[in-house]
Amino acid sequence: MVERGFVLGMDFGGTKMALATADDHGMILHRADIPTLSDAHDAISRALEVAHELINRTETQYQSRLRRVGVATMGITQDSGVLLAPNVAGWRELRLPQLLHTAFNGIPVLIANDVKSAALAELKWGALQGMDPALFVNLGTGIAVALIASGRIIQGAHGASGEIAYNPLTEHDCRGVRDDVAPLEERVGGGAIQRRARDELGWDLDAGELLRQAPRDPVIRMWLDPILRTLSFQLTHLVIALDPARVVIGGGLAKVHEVIFPYLRQSFDSFVPFPPEIVIAHFERDAGLMGAIALALDGSQAVHGG
Amino acid sequence: MVERGFVLGMDFGGTKMALATADDHGMILHRADIPTLSDAHDAISRALEVAHELINRTETQYQSRLRRVGVATMGITQDSGVLLAPNVAGWRELRLPQLLHTAFNGIPVLIANDVKSAALAELKWGALQGMDPALFVNLGTGIAVALIASGRIIQGAHGASGEIAYNPLTEHDCRGVRDDVAPLEERVGGGAIQRRARDELGWDLDAGELLRQAPRDPVIRMWLDPILRTLSFQLTHLVIALDPARVVIGGGLAKVHEVIFPYLRQSFDSFVPFPPEIVIAHFERDAGLMGAIALALDGSQAVHGG
Repeated sequence: MVERGFVLGMDFGGTKMALATADDHGMILHRADIPTLSDAHDAISRALEVAHELINRTETQYQSRLRRVGVATMGITQDSGVLLAPNVAGWRELRLPQLLHTAFNGIPVLIANDVKSAALAELKWGALQGMDPALFVNLGTGIAVALIASGRIIQGAHGASGEIAYNPLTEHDCRGVRDDVAPLEERVGGGAIQRRARDELGWDLDAGELLRQAPRDPVIRMWLDPILRTLSFQLTHLVIALDPARVVIGGGLAKVHEVIFPYLRQSFDSFVPFPPEIVIAHFERDAGLMGAIALALDGSQAVHGG
Repeated sequence: MVERGFVLGMDFGGTKMALATADDHGMILHRADIPTLSDAHDAISRALEVAHELINRTETQYQSRLRRVGVATMGITQDSGVLLAPNVAGWRELRLPQLLHTAFNGIPVLIANDVKSAALAELKWGALQGMDPALFVNLGTGIAVALIASGRIIQGAHGASGEIAYNPLTEHDCRGVRDDVAPLEERVGGGAIQRRARDELGWDLDAGELLRQAPRDPVIRMWLDPILRTLSFQLTHLVIALDPARVVIGGGLAKVHEVIFPYLRQSFDSFVPFPPEIVIAHFERDAGLMGAIALALDGSQAVHGG
């Protein structure tokens, strides 16, 4: 808990970066959104410029000072680079902890993966409050989960827990992370769905739009059926293993859940000894940013910080 | 932590029950093993008789008194009965907490599932010490896991975490726990392997013997191949989700790991971003009993106690 002053949250995503200063209760004081564009170093330096602007405005307006910085970011941040972050050029080589440490001279910087950050926001202020254990599922361009137990996000021995994008689809699969393949994400991820809909059906619709049209379009429903079966099959394994009080679905595809939820419901009801609730995430667009703020307020949940 | 005196551990298994008194360090003082036989109530009353005998002998010999009782048992113990415990007649209807509370009038009784108890013994004295997060896998007649995070066994919202016996095998499976079917256990459990070897091949060998002969017998190896693929496929999902520092394999089949481990190794190496160590459990025969003792010494890890 930060005693006085304010915190800065930064959410570095593949297409946009969101930044905000916030008070002790997570109430946003000033905020800005900027595009990520193509180059990692350029993106970070633009973000830092905006960050300092926000800090200055907050200091002036509230006569308060910056206590901590929380960062939600793609992949697994290590001192020497960022692992499992394939989307932005140069991101893998970023020495993010050192870079941010220098930029916020003396102020503690806490870094966590974007999906774990979103789960933290849900745990602190959203749909995961008091749920233990619990499962947060990010359905979007990326597919990942966060496991919650004893009031904490499980980080994993290498900060890589929840990266189910790499799950094999069948026992005959051979290619996985070692070959730079993410089998589950390449089947049920938003980008993969859009690409295959274009290639296989000639439709130029993104995954959200396909899911939105599915209730009224039997062809789309039929085409989505094996994809949603794969998703619910795989999540069922996790739900059986964890016995969560609740499963919270976040990410870009969560808002078009009319078609997804019944698949999960049916699979959980058939296979899980105590089928959990399935609930949509509280934070929709700002999950990562609110997670970054939560991280700054509660530094013990960071993978990388100090 | 129990300050002085001794504890009693009881491990109620489907074929045998092990009981022991132990000191603060988990050192066994007196012990007894008795068969479970067919009836739950009869089994419990024989066990309680032996328990009181052990208690008396320990009290007399060590001038010490009983502080707590730990019980490792099949299934999910609730006040009104035991869930997911199909092996012994009448076990599902047992009001175990009340029964034990009465039998040890005034002494706290802590109850946990047998696989979680075994994992607790490994966490306290065995191969899981200092491993966080970690995965304990029980391969035997029953198939189940225990997930460890923040130094604790994850119990689940209903005490049913780790019951992966109920995992569906493919996305086309329909029958699971709701139909009293445990798809994964009925494929890779020791009993299922023995039954199918007899039915499909006419061999009257138990699963351990089949696994023991496999390195020298290509027919057995070929027959086991799809079973071991299923097992490693399913465990890979869990390992990706948890990012454990170590995977510990226990249960009756753990000791014949020459054929099993290479399957797990290959699957983890292909699919898991940071492939964990695979290690055989420290406690072989006495995992449940040592878990019951650990439980009595560290009551916070019980599902049901007080």
